[in-house]
Order: sequence, then structure tokens, then C-alpha cells
Amino acid sequence: MTQTTFPYEIEIEVAFRDIDAMGHVNNAVFFSYFETARVKYIMKVFEPGDLTGFDLLDLPLILVEAACSYKSPALLGEKLKVGIGLSRFGTKSFDLLYRILGQDGRLVAAGKTIQVMYDYGTRSAYPIPDHIKEQVQAFQARWQPSEPV
Amino acid sequence: MTQTTFPYEIEIEVAFRDIDAMGHVNNAVFFSYFETARVKYIMKVFEPGDLTGFDLLDLPLILVEAACSYKSPALLGEKLKVGIGLSRFGTKSFDLLYRILGQDGRLVAAGKTIQVMYDYGTRSAYPIPDHIKEQVQAFQARWQPSEPV
Amino acid sequence: MTQTTFPYEIEIEVAFRDIDAMGHVNNAVFFSYFETARVKYIMKVFEPGDLTGFDLLDLPLILVEAACSYKSPALLGEKLKVGIGLSRFGTKSFDLLYRILGQDGRLVAAGKTIQVMYDYGTRSAYPIPDHIKEQVQAFQARWQPSEPV
Amino acid sequence: MTQTTFPYEIEIEVAFRDIDAMGHVNNAVFFSYFETARVKYIMKVFEPGDLTGFDLLDLPLILVEAACSYKSPALLGEKLKVGIGLSRFGTKSFDLLYRILGQDGRLVAAGKTIQVMYDYGTRSAYPIPDHIKEQVQAFQARWQPSEPV
Repeated sequence: MTQTTFPYEIEIEVAFRDIDAMGHVNNAVFFSYFETARVKYIMKVFEPGDLTGFDLLDLPLILVEAACSYKSPALLGEKLKVGIGLSRFGTKSFDLLYRILGQDGRLVAAGKTIQVMYDYGTRSAYPIPDHIKEQVQAFQARWQPSEPV
Repeated sequence: MTQTTFPYEIEIEVAFRDIDAMGHVNNAVFFSYFETARVKYIMKVFEPGDLTGFDLLDLPLILVEAACSYKSPALLGEKLKVGIGLSRFGTKSFDLLYRILGQDGRLVAAGKTIQVMYDYGTRSAYPIPDHIKEQVQAFQARWQPSEPV
Repeated sequence: MTQTTFPYEIEIEVAFRDIDAMGHVNNAVFFSYFETARVKYIMKVFEPGDLTGFDLLDLPLILVEAACSYKSPALLGEKLKVGIGLSRFGTKSFDLLYRILGQDGRLVAAGKTIQVMYDYGTRSAYPIPDHIKEQVQAFQARWQPSEPV
Repeated sequence: MTQTTFPYEIEIEVAFRDIDAMGHVNNAVFFSYFETARVKYIMKVFEPGDLTGFDLLDLPLILVEAACSYKSPALLGEKLKVGIGLSRFGTKSFDLLYRILGQDGRLVAAGKTIQVMYDYGTRSAYPIPDHIKEQVQAFQARWQPSEPV
């Protein structure tokens, strides 16, 4: 099956609940697909370990921007590839890029989110720890990000 | 991994969008899980073939009742088993039973839906064709349904 | 506009996101409609006050059963009436009934949920406090519940 | 209550189903809020009339881009104002801007979508009819759009 060539990739099979009255995946649902990939990427690369259940909810970030370009409708039953990679580190914020391919390899959607490291206890943003930057660089060493089409 | 012992079974990994403010899968989402299993079961057993995309939307049925018993919370990242089987044929209606197991094999939820064969073109119910009854009986010949706990 | 004659009633306008590929409100969404009515009923009758935001999330209950009978499709833009009333008190559990009417007064759906009083801190069920029973009885003094059709 | 000063405005009360595990409205749900406002704006300004039900689904457009800036969390029970206005006409495409205010008047989110006029029958884009441009200009004659913050 075609790959997105992004550092991390998950497969999502389009379910009936994702389809709207127009017969294809609803525009808002793509942001849930991005979120599913993001949660798994963060858990894998930021906090390697064996988190499960409620612990998985301690996500140290908040979203400040999200965008998606829709390229081709996604259909019921399609097995989509959702690629994700971290394309920029600021002091407290970082960017994630996304690319979704259809079962036949066509480009379905491309997206970007900006998020900041955030402590829900103190309700404040904080600088990205060096060890997280290093883990990300090690994990996606060979990837050259390009902006979404 | 533990099996539901139902005639047909799919795996669903709990995504962040399925979790509500209480930290576990929202009660309404279980009906979407049932639906995901139902659509795949119907396509596999009622209309064997290679349907894709818009054709998959020609589902010849409407729901008249749905019920779920919640037994244990399902958590983010859990890989659930969703079993489904057809437990009763009426003239135009039939019952489906569901059982959802958690990653550790515990019972998470049990459910039932009643649906009628329905032609969206003529907007009327119609008797279940004999060949569908035969296909179901062949597919789940060894299964003894019991009501949800 | 027609009323449900239930003790408490909210209006919900069907949004595009509620409609599935069949062109009407998806079966799982009715349970979200029930939930919306339930949260508002609980806040109004169980804990009269001016709760807002995060405080509203301290809902002292868990769902153990939910059921819905679908009577007529609900359509995009329809202003539905969702009635709710408490029909039974057990020691730790209680039943809620629901009735949804369409904009023209037709019966769209009827439902029931069973929930138990639950302390998320100690993770255990607890007996329904007397003052809650009294508040409910005062609030819906003139209502004679009947089981969903 | 504070107004968005956008040409068209709806009110949405945050429901429990909109809240994610972090306790506030989920990022993807804002795109459903935009969609709710968009469908009502299109019906009111593009096709003035008394459409209902299935007719409302003949929406002559597809989304090609969507973006949202998140400014402040929205909480359970909040009555949000969602403003929408058309900020640019191309030949076949047009831009919509959105602004969401919280119950206290603070800025909660700002967004933008780009869509093209689209005939689902012939599956092709088509030039925006002149009468639609005129209706939009008449409807929002006094509005000076500015890009989302």
C-alpha cells in the first residue's frame, strides 16, 4: 500500500459515522483524523513508554491553530493512510504537518496544526524540554518537511 | 487476544474523539461502534461482493430500536473487540446482538438493535429475501445467540 | 409549538453534523440529544444553582443502560422538542424517560436510560440523597410517567 | 449579549458531546460550529425561500480549505455567538470568515473556509451566478471584512 513518506503513519478505515449527507467524509472529521494521529505520535515520540487509559489523557499541549486542504473525497470503507511529522520547533510552540492518502494512493488531504506545550495544572505554557527536541530529531532524522500543498 | 465468540468480529481502537469529559468512551459512541460492525456485517453476509465507496451507502435497512448495557468503561487507546450476530428473523424485521470486549477480555458493553428491510427508493419496508436468510444461516451456522446480559 | 408534556423540555435544532449518509439524523445522535437534555435536567433539578464551565462536569452519575425507539426520521433544520422526566428511584439507581417530537408535533423517538449515583473520586456508587428525591418530586409533581412506546 | 458584528450570526449552546477529555470544546467541533453557521447562511442568502428537510441537503458547494485559530477555551453550557460573512468572490470560489465569541464577549475562535460552487449531479465546479453575488452584496452591504486574527 502506498506510504505517505511522513515520519509516522497510521491507518484509519472510514466508518459510517464519518460520512455526512453528501456521501463522503465530513470536513470536520479530518481534524479528528489528524488528532488521532497526533495523540499517537506524541505518545510514541514525546513520552516513550507504555501508557494506557487515563494516563494517556495527560497530554501536555493545547492547539492554537489548525488547517486542512481538501484534495479528494474519502469514501466509506476506504483504508486511509494518515502521515504526521513535526516540522518546526519554537520556544514553547511547534508545528505538525499531516498528509492523508486514499486507498489508491491519491492525495486526500493535507493539514497543519500549531500547538504549545501546556501544563494543565498551572494553566500556563512552558518551554519545550530539550529531551523532547532530541527525541523528535532522532525519530524523524531523515525527513525533510515541506509545507502542505 | 480474547474473542467475543460472536459470528463476526471487528477490532476498534478507542480514539481521542470517542472520549468524553469523564475520561472514557461516551455512551452515544457505543452506538457508533455497533453501527460500524453492523455495516460491515451486512456488506459481508447480505451482499457478498466487492462494494466500495458510494455503493456501500445503499444499505437496505432502517433502525427501529437500539439498546446498550454498559458494563465497564472503555479507555483511550484500548483495542476493543466488537462482536455481532443476527439472532432473529421476522417477516420484514430482524435483530442483531452485539458484545464488546476490552483489551483484557472483560465485558465492556452488550447491545441489541432491531431493523427492518427498507427500500429508500419506494420508502417502504419489504420482506427479507430468502437468499439473505440462507446466507445468514450458512454464515453463522454454529452460533447459539443469547440475549444481552 | 407542540409540547412533549414531560416535566422538562429543551429544543434542539438539527444541525448538518447530525445527519448521516441516509439524509436524516443518525441513530447514535439521538443518544447525544438525550444526553444534552439529561445534563440540563440534572443541573436544574439535582443541583439547583448557577454552575458554569468546568463545575458543570462534576456530574455524579454513570449510565448503565440506554435504549431508543425510532419512530420517524428527523431532518436537517428541524426544531425538535426533547422532553425528559425521572420515572423511577431505586436505592442507588434511577430511570429517565425521553420523548422527542418533530416540528410538526409527530413522535420522532422515545427513550430510556438507567443511571446510578456515582462518586468519581472514590469510584463507587452511593445511595441517592433524600434531598434529591424531594427536589425531583417537587419539580415533577404533576407528571405521570408511562413507559416509552 | 455581545455581538460579533458579522453579517449573520447564530447562537450555539455548548453541549456535553462537544467537550473532550480536556474539559473544553474539542478542536474539531469548531469546524462543525462553522458548518452549522455556513449551512444557515447559504440557505438564507444564496437561496432565499422556505427549504426544509431533504431539500436543505442540495448544498451547491464543496469545501477546499478550512482553518481555525483557537483563542480561548469554550466551556460546557456556554452560549456562543458564531458570526459568519462572505469576504471574497472568485470566479468559482468564495471565502467565508467566522468569529466565535464566548458568553462574556471574549474572542473564542476565528476561522476561514474556502469553497467552490459545485454541481453534485455533473460532479463539476461552476461559476458563481450573478444573482448570488448580488444577493450577498445586498445582504452584507455595510460589512468590511478583515482577515481572522
